[in-house]
Formats: sequence, structure tokens, C-alpha cells
Amino acid sequence: MGGYFDWAATSPICDEALRAYAQTAVTYPGNPSAVHNAGRQAAACLKGFRERCASVLGCRPENLYFTSGGTESDSIVLNSALQVLSPGQIIISKSEHPAIRQYAPVLRRFGWQVTELPCPGGFASLKQLKKLLTPDTRFVFLMSVNNILGTIQDIAGAVEVCRDYSTSTGRPIHVHVDAVQAVGKIPLDFSGLKADSMAFSAHKFMGPRGCGILINTDSSLSALSVGGGQESGLRPGTENLPAIAAMTAALEKAVAELDENRQRATELNAYARDSLTQAGFEILSPADSDTGRCSPFILNVCSNSIPSEVLVRMLSDLGFYISAGSACNNNSRKKTPGLTELGFRPTQAATSVRISTGPLTTMQQMQELCSAMADCLKGF
Amino acid sequence: MGGYFDWAATSPICDEALRAYAQTAVTYPGNPSAVHNAGRQAAACLKGFRERCASVLGCRPENLYFTSGGTESDSIVLNSALQVLSPGQIIISKSEHPAIRQYAPVLRRFGWQVTELPCPGGFASLKQLKKLLTPDTRFVFLMSVNNILGTIQDIAGAVEVCRDYSTSTGRPIHVHVDAVQAVGKIPLDFSGLKADSMAFSAHKFMGPRGCGILINTDSSLSALSVGGGQESGLRPGTENLPAIAAMTAALEKAVAELDENRQRATELNAYARDSLTQAGFEILSPADSDTGRCSPFILNVCSNSIPSEVLVRMLSDLGFYISAGSACNNNSRKKTPGLTELGFRPTQAATSVRISTGPLTTMQQMQELCSAMADCLKGF
Repeated sequence: MGGYFDWAATSPICDEALRAYAQTAVTYPGNPSAVHNAGRQAAACLKGFRERCASVLGCRPENLYFTSGGTESDSIVLNSALQVLSPGQIIISKSEHPAIRQYAPVLRRFGWQVTELPCPGGFASLKQLKKLLTPDTRFVFLMSVNNILGTIQDIAGAVEVCRDYSTSTGRPIHVHVDAVQAVGKIPLDFSGLKADSMAFSAHKFMGPRGCGILINTDSSLSALSVGGGQESGLRPGTENLPAIAAMTAALEKAVAELDENRQRATELNAYARDSLTQAGFEILSPADSDTGRCSPFILNVCSNSIPSEVLVRMLSDLGFYISAGSACNNNSRKKTPGLTELGFRPTQAATSVRISTGPLTTMQQMQELCSAMADCLKGF
Repeated sequence: MGGYFDWAATSPICDEALRAYAQTAVTYPGNPSAVHNAGRQAAACLKGFRERCASVLGCRPENLYFTSGGTESDSIVLNSALQVLSPGQIIISKSEHPAIRQYAPVLRRFGWQVTELPCPGGFASLKQLKKLLTPDTRFVFLMSVNNILGTIQDIAGAVEVCRDYSTSTGRPIHVHVDAVQAVGKIPLDFSGLKADSMAFSAHKFMGPRGCGILINTDSSLSALSVGGGQESGLRPGTENLPAIAAMTAALEKAVAELDENRQRATELNAYARDSLTQAGFEILSPADSDTGRCSPFILNVCSNSIPSEVLVRMLSDLGFYISAGSACNNNSRKKTPGLTELGFRPTQAATSVRISTGPLTTMQQMQELCSAMADCLKGF
């Protein structure tokens, strides 16, 4: 009995990725920046992975940069802002991950006006976005799929709002999208969304830890330092070829199996909604059928009685691994307000848990989890 | 025939590291920041790796931070400087890697006075260091083992110069040491060197790419953003447990076999010095026996006739992989001046190549390389 329901925190690495890691590490030991043949072979291999990832994500290979993960992909854009000579306004949605929200103080210290975009119910308000834009707005940060609720933002709509405004002022607005929870969950096409940059993390889609992608088409973006000049100077450091190989394999698999995985996740989600509602839990993630805008891979529910961490520990002792908010939030002394900022009541927020599934989650596991959760609530 | 002589650029991953990677990825799939048991098991595992690395490097576990590599380890210290409210002077030795030197323009833009420390022959001049220190000096950046020549800096001596000066002014000076080329090459004991911080990169000692260490004892250091709060907020992002496991295995092995590897490297180095001198090459790396201050794993020589890259390509076609300067330098449009700044003549610099060896380099490979290099020079 038991099961892993914390896929939004991290996913197990798939066999294809692990094999690609070992195979590439052994077959291409050279440094891709080296001039000799071992280096050139590694560089050719790197080029191939870049093309494959770009093809899957719908961007040009030259706009795709390999990074050490989602946090770094976000940071590259944010660090670039720190170097702007005349800072203006940055709009950050209230549903952003700490990787982005925690930059607010440093951005302010560097002269930026940081404005928070309301996200009632987990959805960035385009109406509010339109109101908040000023001629000084330089960056807008949005999250494709929210990591706590699973809500899916209307990125294309938000980009359109920004582009329309830009047309009126003649000043560009860089729209960055944190798509860390989106790969393998919703169809993604960078070129179709028309955003300026987008961040990805391999370990969320059964790829390796410590590897990610930044897609960027804004030529004004620059790293704090070009260092050794790798990744066109935007992400210096010896290229992590084995991890990039593993990520490429996982990415292709995740996208190829998206429909199938999404179908199963939808069934698991529907079951859990019914079962947990009957058991007395309140469902916080909006129903997909209501809005068409929530990932079936993430289900946030609250008991209105058992504190989040207590329920997580009770279930953990039974072998069920769910989460209270995001794993990243567990390290902060001052936790990000999270759900209350998205319009939920303090009691809902304080007793909410996140159930997140992945390609390996079975219906039997979900049935057992729901049954265990029902028991916990009855016995509390 | 042929051989890999570019170990200073990157080394092949050792079996122990590759096994540890796969085993940890499969055995500890949880996110170390998660509250449930899968997370706690991963966190305990991470703690164990931190203790083992700290034990090998001579520091306290709480001062050891896992990073994505040497460049990032250096950047954390440099990015911290960008946040200082009243910037002062930063001294950067002329022998530093681009990961550090390329920060000079951004540091200047942020108000710092960046002063270069002369390194004649590849050795940081302590006499010059003493002269350059001012009451405004806040940081000094030094390289333990130079990546181009192999020269070993007197870090303890340099730290003493800084500490003596600090005592007179009452203002602390942070001494950062790039020890990327030092692990497994020279004995390393952080506590004995009394520096404030030190950077390491796993793939230079047969560990995985994309993984490194920053040791830091300066509590005033801070990341631009704490992000998800991992690594005490100094290096946010989900911890790369499999790579950390692999790095730990490689680190322990490299240090355990240091004497044995160093002995063999010394023999290879002595052979190459004799053989290449007889063939007409000029040796640029100082002889270890002369100074006791050069790594036998790196030998820089010049032909005074064949341009560096031409010789590298000629040898590459024969299956011998050596390097013209550092791999990281190959990406920059404007190459760092390198050897000329260390006091070498332009002809020496323009025709120099680096031969770097590792635990797997054999005497036969070295004999074949020297013979091939002699043939290249004769035929040119």
C-alpha cells in the first residue's frame, strides 16, 4: 500500500533518461568547447539535443539555452533586469513560484517598481493586467501551470494584452513564462504563445535533476557575466551533456505520451474529486470541466480541520507521499502566503494539501490514497 | 594510437561516480525539501554526502554548499558583491579563469574598483598584493592551481597578507579561492588555508558535469534571491542528489588516490619535458623541482612556430587531444589575453599548447604524443 503523489515537487527519472545519461557520459567525454575532435564530437551531440528540444517546444534552436534548472532559467531573465540602466516597472503574478517571487526585494533594491498581479482562484486576471500596465512596464512574469492549484493561465491572452499596450507606447514589454509544471501536462508551443522567454525544469517531467531550459528571443537579455561564454554567454559553465541527453529523452517521451498520460490523469483526478468530496474534503483546484483551465495532474484539496503538515505526515507514515504547498516553500522561514493571496480563506490555506500525479500513478494507488485520507479525516 | 590530454578541460566520469548517480536516482527519488518520508530520506542522504565532502575538503558541513559547478560557485561570491551597498575595491589576480575575470565589467558597473593583481610567470605576487591592498579592499580572488600553466599559488601566504592588513584596518577582506584545478592534484584543506570561500567543479576530478561545491564561512555572503531556499538560500533550486552522490564518490576517490596519481603524473611530466625540449619545444610551465609550485598534471609548452590552434588540430587528426589555452576561452569572441598577461612573449603565447593528464593517462600515450608533436614540429 502507498504511493507517490508529489510529482509536482519532483518526478522519478525515466529509464530512457537514465540510459541516455550514462551512454552520453561514456560516449562523449569531451568538453563541447574544446577544439579537438573529442570536443567537436561533444559539440555536435549538443547541437543535436538542442535541435530536438527546440523541435518539441516549438522554438528555434538558437533561442534555446540549456541551464541547470527552472530556478536558474528564471534567474537569467531576472538577473538581466538588474543590469538595466533605467529600471521601470516589473509585474509579477501572485501565483508565481518562489524562484521568481523572492526576487521582488532585490529588484526593488535595484530601483525597480515591482507590482503584483492579482490571481483570484489561481488565475492571473487579464483585466487587472491591462490596468496595471504603464509606459514604464518592462517585464511581466507569468506561470503557465500553477504549481499549487494546477490552474492554467491564458498565456496567449496575456501576451496579447501586453503586445497591444506595447503598440500604443512603442516600448517593448518582455513577457516571461514559467512553464516548469507545463511540460507533458498541456500542449506547449513557444512560437504560438508569442512570449519572450520561457523556463523549463527537466526533473518535473521524468528527466534528470540539475538540468533545464530557457527559451529566449529577446536579444537585449544578458547574463551578469559571460564567463567561459557557453550557451552564447547567457549561461556560462561547462555544458552538462549527459544531463542534457537525459532531458532530451525525457522531454520527447513526455510530449509523445501527453495525450495518454493526460487521459489517465483526468480519470484519477475525477475519481479523487468525487471520493474526497464524499469524505468531507473541499476541492480547491477548479474543475477542469468548469473552466478548461486546470491541469488534471494537480489536485488541491483542504479538510478545513487537519493542518496541512499534519495530514502530510499522517499519510507519509502510511506510505502516501503528498505535499503541503510546494516543496520549495518548506525551506523558507517566512513561507510565501500562497493560497490566501489567491483568494482562499486562511482555514482553507492552512489545511490544504496538494495531490500531484504522473505517468506512473495507478488508479489503485489513488483509490488507496483517497481511502486513507478519508480515514485520517474521520479519525481526527 | 592517440590519447586524451585535455583533463584540465574536463575528465571522463569514473565508474564509481556513474554507478552512484544511477543508484541514487533510483533509490532516492524524493525531493529533499519535501516533508514526507521520501523527501526526508532524500534529505538524510543529502546530509550524508555533505558531511563526506566536508570531511574530505577540511571544512564544516554547514559551510559546504552544493552548486551546479565551478562557474556558479564563483558567481555566488561575485553576485553577493553586487549587492553591497557601498562598493569598494576588488582585487582579481591576472591568472583567474574567465568565470571570474569576465565579471570585472559588471563589477565596475556596480561601482566597484577592480584591480588586477600581477602574476608574473603564473604566480600571484604577494609583494604586489600587499601594495595593492587599501582600506577599501573587500574581496581578493585567487586561483589555487592555474588552469593554463599549472602554477600553484601560495594561498596560505596570500591569506596571511590579507589578514595582517585587515588587522591594521579592522575591516574584513573576503579571500575567495578558485580551487577547480586543485582537487586530486594537490592536498587541500580548507580550514588550514584560512580563506573565506573556495570553489570546486566535479567534472574536473572524474565526477559528473553540472555539479560543484562552494565552501563559504563568510556569513555576510548572500545570493541575489533565496528562491526556494535550498542550500540555506545561497543556491536555490531542487538539489541535484544523483549528481551530488556521484561527485562525492569521485571526490573521495580522487583524494584517496592523490599520491599515487601525482607520482605517475610527475613521471609523465618529466618525460614530456625532456622529450619535448629535445624536439625543440620550449617549456612554459615552471619545473616542479625548481619551485615546488607547479602541478605535474598540467604542462604548457610552445613551439615558437606553429600557431596553437593549428598544432591542436594537427594532433587531433592523429587522435591526440590537447588544448590551446582553456576550453572556456574558445567561446569568447575576444579571447582573454592569458599568457601574455602573465609575462610571456606574444610568440610564446600564440604558439603555446596545454597538455593535461589524469589518472588514466599512460606512459605509452605520453610517449606517442611527444613523438607526434616532434613530427609536427619537424614537418611544419
